[in-house]
Amino acid sequence: MLKLYVGNKNYSSWSMRPWVLMRQAGIDFEEIPVRFDSFAPGSDFKRALAQVSPTGKVPVLVDGDTTVWDTLAIAEYLAETRPDARLWPQERAARAQARSAAAEMHSGFAALRGAFPMNIEARLPEVGALALRDRPGVQADLQRLVQLWDGLLARHGGPMLFGHFTVADAFYAPVCMRLITYQPEGLSEASAAYVQRVADLPGVRDWIAGALLEHDFRPFEEPYRLRR
Amino acid sequence: MLKLYVGNKNYSSWSMRPWVLMRQAGIDFEEIPVRFDSFAPGSDFKRALAQVSPTGKVPVLVDGDTTVWDTLAIAEYLAETRPDARLWPQERAARAQARSAAAEMHSGFAALRGAFPMNIEARLPEVGALALRDRPGVQADLQRLVQLWDGLLARHGGPMLFGHFTVADAFYAPVCMRLITYQPEGLSEASAAYVQRVADLPGVRDWIAGALLEHDFRPFEEPYRLRR
Ligand SMILES: N[C@@H](CCC(=O)N[C@@H](CS)C(=O)NCC(=O)O)C(=O)O
Ligand SMILES: N[C@@H](CCC(=O)N[C@@H](CS)C(=O)NCC(=O)O)C(=O)O
Repeated sequence: MLKLYVGNKNYSSWSMRPWVLMRQAGIDFEEIPVRFDSFAPGSDFKRALAQVSPTGKVPVLVDGDTTVWDTLAIAEYLAETRPDARLWPQERAARAQARSAAAEMHSGFAALRGAFPMNIEARLPEVGALALRDRPGVQADLQRLVQLWDGLLARHGGPMLFGHFTVADAFYAPVCMRLITYQPEGLSEASAAYVQRVADLPGVRDWIAGALLEHDFRPFEEPYRLRR
Repeated sequence: MLKLYVGNKNYSSWSMRPWVLMRQAGIDFEEIPVRFDSFAPGSDFKRALAQVSPTGKVPVLVDGDTTVWDTLAIAEYLAETRPDARLWPQERAARAQARSAAAEMHSGFAALRGAFPMNIEARLPEVGALALRDRPGVQADLQRLVQLWDGLLARHGGPMLFGHFTVADAFYAPVCMRLITYQPEGLSEASAAYVQRVADLPGVRDWIAGALLEHDFRPFEEPYRLRR
């Protein structure tokens, strides 16, 4: 059986992507949670991953002898080994765009991600408003996000970015969580509705439910609060 | 014919990856250079890309009606449409590792990339030594790089990371350029020899030759010098 090592569900945006992808696509896997204590060498987290993850990071997918240590590589691995799950759009041009969109998330949106760390159980709309007011990069990232989503939803007709659920939606699911936590203004109607549809996907709801059960508070993931 | 929009060869590490990939794999394409003047809205660079790149960034691959706007998505698109070029390893487990390695570069090594912006024609060994002395993240990134390369070269026997030339080598080619420019200590013998072999690939030599012809000096790409 496939094994997926994941971090805290409340915080780990990278872990969320392949977990939601597999859960939503009906791919069976064993989940191995590795709670964050700290990312310092010698932490429980690093020691638990030492034999598994060459980067010391989560997520990691293990399939027998094969270790896949990055979310995008995990998505490609699953798409290749489970063609029935239709993880990418079937049509070549749409597939190229879905890969561009997922990869854009993978290496981009730095300002948005820096200002709005994932924190599923929190509601921090003032932080969202301040970031929008004071950090021009956040504005720009948000505008690009809306342009991307609106364009794809219009072209493919929804409900997901490429019609049916694909890797691209799994990659943007943590962004949807951030938008719900920080509630920045500036989403279009279509984008706001998409955020809600993603939050309502069964695979996403399961992840959120897990996050709400954790009750961990990790200061290094909490730049905006002293406590829950 | 495929069209690839690229930035300055001396500076644009992202552009280098798909260009070297195609050139080295013998895939024909038309190159459309878009010189950097600035990245401000209204710059010549942004205006040249306005009709082409949804992110306003390079590289962009255009194949008829299809636009692919991220390096990793470009690599997958080419691998899919040109199976004969063997852009990924043939064996599934090796392919998953090559994708992990390329994706790790795509979203990682932030300290190394921040400290050592690509600048092919420059030689800045003092900057390299200072970064190694003063920025712990650079050390850590360099150690991870050596661990990754040494492991793959030992497992697959070289000369490239997965034996023959693949996307993974194209993704690390700009890192090789940076190591030649900044010459930080700490490479293993095997890694240093790999850097040299990458620099000697015909596709990489062609890119370097183009970089040396440019003679541009862009202050926003030159944190370490007032002039060439
Ligand atoms: N690009 C990687 C990023 C993985 C990543 O940064 N994961 C975080 C948790 S969300 C982590 O494990 N951090 C530990 C550390 O930085 O030491 C991927 O796509 O898998
Ligand atoms: N993740 C993108 C990154 C592309 C990128 O950042 N390109 C730089 C040039 S090396 C750029 O066009 N920058 C313009 C800007 O930031 O406005 C990719 O893989 O293609």
